[in-house]
Amino acid sequence: MSKLNWGMIGGGEGSQIGPAHRLGAGLDGAFDFVAGALDHRADAGRDYGQRLGLVSDRAYGDWREMLAGETGRADRVDLVTVATPNATHFEITAEFLKAGFNVLCEKPMTMTVGEAEHIVGLARETGQICAVNYGYTGYALVRHMRAMVARGDLGKVRLVKAEFAHGHHADAADADNPRVRWRYDPAQAGVSAQFADCGIHALHMASFVTGQNVTTLSADCVSCIESRTLEDDAMVNFRMDGGTVGRLWTSSIAIGRQHGLTLQVFGEKGGLRWAQEQPNQLFWMPLGQRLQTIERGEGNLSPEADRASRVTVGHAEGMPLAFANIYSDLAEAIRAKKEGRPCDPAADLFPRAEDGLRSMAAVFGVAESGKADGQWVDARPPMFR
Amino acid sequence: MSKLNWGMIGGGEGSQIGPAHRLGAGLDGAFDFVAGALDHRADAGRDYGQRLGLVSDRAYGDWREMLAGETGRADRVDLVTVATPNATHFEITAEFLKAGFNVLCEKPMTMTVGEAEHIVGLARETGQICAVNYGYTGYALVRHMRAMVARGDLGKVRLVKAEFAHGHHADAADADNPRVRWRYDPAQAGVSAQFADCGIHALHMASFVTGQNVTTLSADCVSCIESRTLEDDAMVNFRMDGGTVGRLWTSSIAIGRQHGLTLQVFGEKGGLRWAQEQPNQLFWMPLGQRLQTIERGEGNLSPEADRASRVTVGHAEGMPLAFANIYSDLAEAIRAKKEGRPCDPAADLFPRAEDGLRSMAAVFGVAESGKADGQWVDARPPMFR
Amino acid sequence: MSKLNWGMIGGGEGSQIGPAHRLGAGLDGAFDFVAGALDHRADAGRDYGQRLGLVSDRAYGDWREMLAGETGRADRVDLVTVATPNATHFEITAEFLKAGFNVLCEKPMTMTVGEAEHIVGLARETGQICAVNYGYTGYALVRHMRAMVARGDLGKVRLVKAEFAHGHHADAADADNPRVRWRYDPAQAGVSAQFADCGIHALHMASFVTGQNVTTLSADCVSCIESRTLEDDAMVNFRMDGGTVGRLWTSSIAIGRQHGLTLQVFGEKGGLRWAQEQPNQLFWMPLGQRLQTIERGEGNLSPEADRASRVTVGHAEGMPLAFANIYSDLAEAIRAKKEGRPCDPAADLFPRAEDGLRSMAAVFGVAESGKADGQWVDARPPMFR
Amino acid sequence: MSKLNWGMIGGGEGSQIGPAHRLGAGLDGAFDFVAGALDHRADAGRDYGQRLGLVSDRAYGDWREMLAGETGRADRVDLVTVATPNATHFEITAEFLKAGFNVLCEKPMTMTVGEAEHIVGLARETGQICAVNYGYTGYALVRHMRAMVARGDLGKVRLVKAEFAHGHHADAADADNPRVRWRYDPAQAGVSAQFADCGIHALHMASFVTGQNVTTLSADCVSCIESRTLEDDAMVNFRMDGGTVGRLWTSSIAIGRQHGLTLQVFGEKGGLRWAQEQPNQLFWMPLGQRLQTIERGEGNLSPEADRASRVTVGHAEGMPLAFANIYSDLAEAIRAKKEGRPCDPAADLFPRAEDGLRSMAAVFGVAESGKADGQWVDARPPMFR
Repeated sequence: MSKLNWGMIGGGEGSQIGPAHRLGAGLDGAFDFVAGALDHRADAGRDYGQRLGLVSDRAYGDWREMLAGETGRADRVDLVTVATPNATHFEITAEFLKAGFNVLCEKPMTMTVGEAEHIVGLARETGQICAVNYGYTGYALVRHMRAMVARGDLGKVRLVKAEFAHGHHADAADADNPRVRWRYDPAQAGVSAQFADCGIHALHMASFVTGQNVTTLSADCVSCIESRTLEDDAMVNFRMDGGTVGRLWTSSIAIGRQHGLTLQVFGEKGGLRWAQEQPNQLFWMPLGQRLQTIERGEGNLSPEADRASRVTVGHAEGMPLAFANIYSDLAEAIRAKKEGRPCDPAADLFPRAEDGLRSMAAVFGVAESGKADGQWVDARPPMFR
Repeated sequence: MSKLNWGMIGGGEGSQIGPAHRLGAGLDGAFDFVAGALDHRADAGRDYGQRLGLVSDRAYGDWREMLAGETGRADRVDLVTVATPNATHFEITAEFLKAGFNVLCEKPMTMTVGEAEHIVGLARETGQICAVNYGYTGYALVRHMRAMVARGDLGKVRLVKAEFAHGHHADAADADNPRVRWRYDPAQAGVSAQFADCGIHALHMASFVTGQNVTTLSADCVSCIESRTLEDDAMVNFRMDGGTVGRLWTSSIAIGRQHGLTLQVFGEKGGLRWAQEQPNQLFWMPLGQRLQTIERGEGNLSPEADRASRVTVGHAEGMPLAFANIYSDLAEAIRAKKEGRPCDPAADLFPRAEDGLRSMAAVFGVAESGKADGQWVDARPPMFR
Repeated sequence: MSKLNWGMIGGGEGSQIGPAHRLGAGLDGAFDFVAGALDHRADAGRDYGQRLGLVSDRAYGDWREMLAGETGRADRVDLVTVATPNATHFEITAEFLKAGFNVLCEKPMTMTVGEAEHIVGLARETGQICAVNYGYTGYALVRHMRAMVARGDLGKVRLVKAEFAHGHHADAADADNPRVRWRYDPAQAGVSAQFADCGIHALHMASFVTGQNVTTLSADCVSCIESRTLEDDAMVNFRMDGGTVGRLWTSSIAIGRQHGLTLQVFGEKGGLRWAQEQPNQLFWMPLGQRLQTIERGEGNLSPEADRASRVTVGHAEGMPLAFANIYSDLAEAIRAKKEGRPCDPAADLFPRAEDGLRSMAAVFGVAESGKADGQWVDARPPMFR
Repeated sequence: MSKLNWGMIGGGEGSQIGPAHRLGAGLDGAFDFVAGALDHRADAGRDYGQRLGLVSDRAYGDWREMLAGETGRADRVDLVTVATPNATHFEITAEFLKAGFNVLCEKPMTMTVGEAEHIVGLARETGQICAVNYGYTGYALVRHMRAMVARGDLGKVRLVKAEFAHGHHADAADADNPRVRWRYDPAQAGVSAQFADCGIHALHMASFVTGQNVTTLSADCVSCIESRTLEDDAMVNFRMDGGTVGRLWTSSIAIGRQHGLTLQVFGEKGGLRWAQEQPNQLFWMPLGQRLQTIERGEGNLSPEADRASRVTVGHAEGMPLAFANIYSDLAEAIRAKKEGRPCDPAADLFPRAEDGLRSMAAVFGVAESGKADGQWVDARPPMFR
């Protein structure tokens, strides 16, 4: 199987996200890293790209140069990852889609709901793949939860309970730390801090697993550290279009939690519990029976879970492999598109522009409800109402 | 130390609550069970009482007979436990208080906020002890959490997160089971089902540990099993009079949870996590340090925790001993009152009429807000506004 | 049901074991504490007994006085608990058995195997109940494990793995602490320290659960703190008379373990795992299926487990209730004997003189093998060879 | 940094180990996969190699052809991985070392102790790197344990307790399954089954973490499934050259365990506990303090742990990344050798020929002791006595 060509915008030297994407894209050997515009400082980006092994004429100084350069090539990149500052996602993603490239955009996909609707439209018009990086749904057992719900193991899903709590912004002294402060400043971060940063991952996972979309929500947003304008803790109640009730808590002041992304799903016929920090076990209780431990890699899991696993049962797999599953999905989707065949359904699970749009609408919904004493608001994007 | 005399109303043959109280009261040998009106059927109650060892003239046929009988005795009971159906708590408690008895009333203390205010007034007027059985605060490590907060280990408490979730009413077939159905029927259960039954324990614990009272709240109450009128799942956001933000989830459809009463407390200087199903460990992370496991029975705990412990570290203590601690508190409080001395502060921790009143106001607040799309309501009893 | 009369020898003021026995015996209200010789100082014992509520003529000055006093009474004690220093257990137990009393003796039952055989003989001759306090087998789920093995859920039991590890004697500075030092001094503690103190509980539990007795063993005994003569850590491999292989580790220098008594049982058809510090859950994997969590108090447990449970599922029960189950067993066994009827099989589970004897033989076997570089030795008492 | 050239022998189509090595070697982008002799069937190997991207003249038909082909190239491979059947490891490794290649050999390195001594000698003579794949020591927190011991956090290490237990060969029906049966057949598997397959990883980890080597050992080897000739369960007691006592249990019939590789280390000043199935947490209790949870990725870990981590705290890392750390170590060691500079000490941690030799001696020691009723034997290779 020949490799796909992959390029990256952003993720320059010293960034955390750059190595993560390169590891994820490279892990299965499906993508060759062949092009990049890695830094907003053109020379630095070119230099770093070459040190990472790019040939000199594909180590670009900026994304426009890369767009121009790649557009003309026969061996143009099959996928462009956009990992630049948030405010630039919209323009770059839009331009590459229009030029006929598949794109994986870091979250948030855009800064407004309107922009997000525009991207969804572009993806549909151009027929290009537009993925958005809600990478936590790449875990094998998250995919297995989705499969269990889809095949009816839980019956009707009554309630979903999601959390994403950590304590890494709990130190009041950090209120003045520039690396933290900007996140709570509307001028830099937009309408929401902790929900937009973390809570949205939990909400996306709730949608992914239940196969339902959020319709309305009510939010209680608070700033536990008083000097913050935006929320560092939020509780969101919501309703989904399949009738499921949702509850979501997110916090950055929860000292004792490291990276507490968890999901519980309760249906007529059973309940599920999963936690990102112990991702290789899924706890399942069928109604009236005992709690069971489902192990990643055990026999008789769903095709979705099997495809997302790489090592045998009892060997932990972690976040980097979950993240790599998004790239693995994209490799299959891109190949299927090239070959004019249907994508393997077990790979057709990567988050896409519609998810980016719905997430954007949820962020704005939370902000609006939070300001209005928790009034219920319609959290659907206008185009999906 | 001479024993105290103890009597019980309700808790007849076959009840669950009767043996639990007798175990709790008898465990430390502080109380002798000497009188009772155990059954609404007079003969059955007298017979059962004698089989339990009561002398015949103190195995009463009903509570009025017991009130009359005990009032005239020199060796009258030092404490009366009221474990009758909810609707009778108010009258019995009021009458015994007025006659000069100390009372431990099962929850809920009354059926209305007004009645509860009346009980608070009576307790104050008569000087009698009126305790209410929120027994989960008897756990040694719950008391240690309270002590840690009180002595400032957490600094200002920013957020408290409480849960009480189980899945024992998740079977839709049970909607017709009389043992379950009445709980969700307003005619029999009042204004609230799951919150009044379970959630209120979590709310009381949040108040107990933080030393703060609820002021306002917003509730999202749902009936996941549609045939139910009252809620089987609720999310409650609240604010406390010391500035703490609260979040509380309760559910009876959470398949996979057995008896999921948990509390997390997040302050400026650290975070705590405790779960009723593993009650002998408390997880504590001081800001910027590592998660520590505090063991019940370890050296250097608070006096409150030490007093509430009976066996050495590493030996689990469970619910019956926590419950016995409420009786142990009461024994000390009653003796202190008799002897005209101050009660040991480490024992002065039993829930009392004021807690019963605040809990009643919270239940009505949740019901009111739940009906009004989560509108924020004042959850303080009128007399404490 | 009339109460049984209970008396105690030893367990004087300030001891740990005295309150534990009084709590255990009193918890279910089956026993009245009516007689005692609580202290080797006669006056102190008499005084303390009366303060605990004994009438003056049954607050004895020593055990011989008690033996004489009780022997002549119509309302003599139905059970005597012997909780005196180890070296006195043999004589006191023997004398009370001979005088027709039922006895519960603290472990070790005697100081030598020969004495233990003598006690077994006496119990058989006199027909009295002679129990020995290996109290950890009182846990409901330990009894459930035994029931599962007995009814064949595991098939043939291949291997049992037991541990009892703690770190409370790990501080080298404690080598000079008199409260610790004597335990490792052969002159005071006999032939074994950590195995005799803790390991033997794990070995007894292995026998209790498998229903098999130890035949041969090989031990590796070490003194991690070099100034100790007796072992503070030991590994024992053994074989059982039903063909099961055993492995047992015990340690007092395992810093990080509190009271690590655990049992794993592996059979042809499944495996079990239980830990004393989380005693309300039992982990069970049937061959080829998933790990299941069995909860104390859940429906459909064995009669043995149900009888040993007091509160509903999800409410932890701890060590004091496990201990009380030994007394509860004894109450039933004594009543059955008095009434000339068979004992409830679900109560006929208390450890008895034979267990005390086998344990003594195992202790001597471990000591002998430990001195002989782990040579395999016959660990059966001579009378059972 | 230019990439290193890497080649592989064995790991053909359908093997598990092949993809694992390619993932591990490729993960950080340090190695380019440029040569291979992947299958004992020459055509299949050449074909598969080319499908994996090898150029045709480096997709060799067998290892001799590869040895000849690579020896003459300027761009010869910097590292050869040997992942062929066990019996061929010795010859291939020896020949490549003699030809001046660095080698990573799968375990076991050889079939006899004598062969292993020969490899150690060759590695020393040739100056080539000869690594052996005990990959579990690549976990960041295993490396942190080693660093803690080395810097004295535990004081003198008194005891190390290791386990590697699983239940995947517990089904008696599998005794006839060819995929399982050969492992217990001396003709195919050699002198030991479960210890050689799994236990040896635990023993190597014990040596790695303590920095000590095994001197003597005593083993109790049993075949719980009677038709097996070799052991499916073993308990090994051992002594180490720094005075530490060791205890190791390994089993393949432990139903309920998935991949139970765990290590506990007890020293004068504290105790550690780590488990492969939850590899991102390390439990540490300093003497007299509380149990702490050390998180992979937290601040202030050792340089060894930091170098072995790729993602931020709270994101699980699993086995594939641990394995990749062996390759990451080798990349640094090879570069250092090329550049004539010292290797980064935090990378100089890969297992090498001496470890392969000591492991081989331990396997033979266990087999010998197991046949001799657990007699203590010298488990040091002759050349290290």
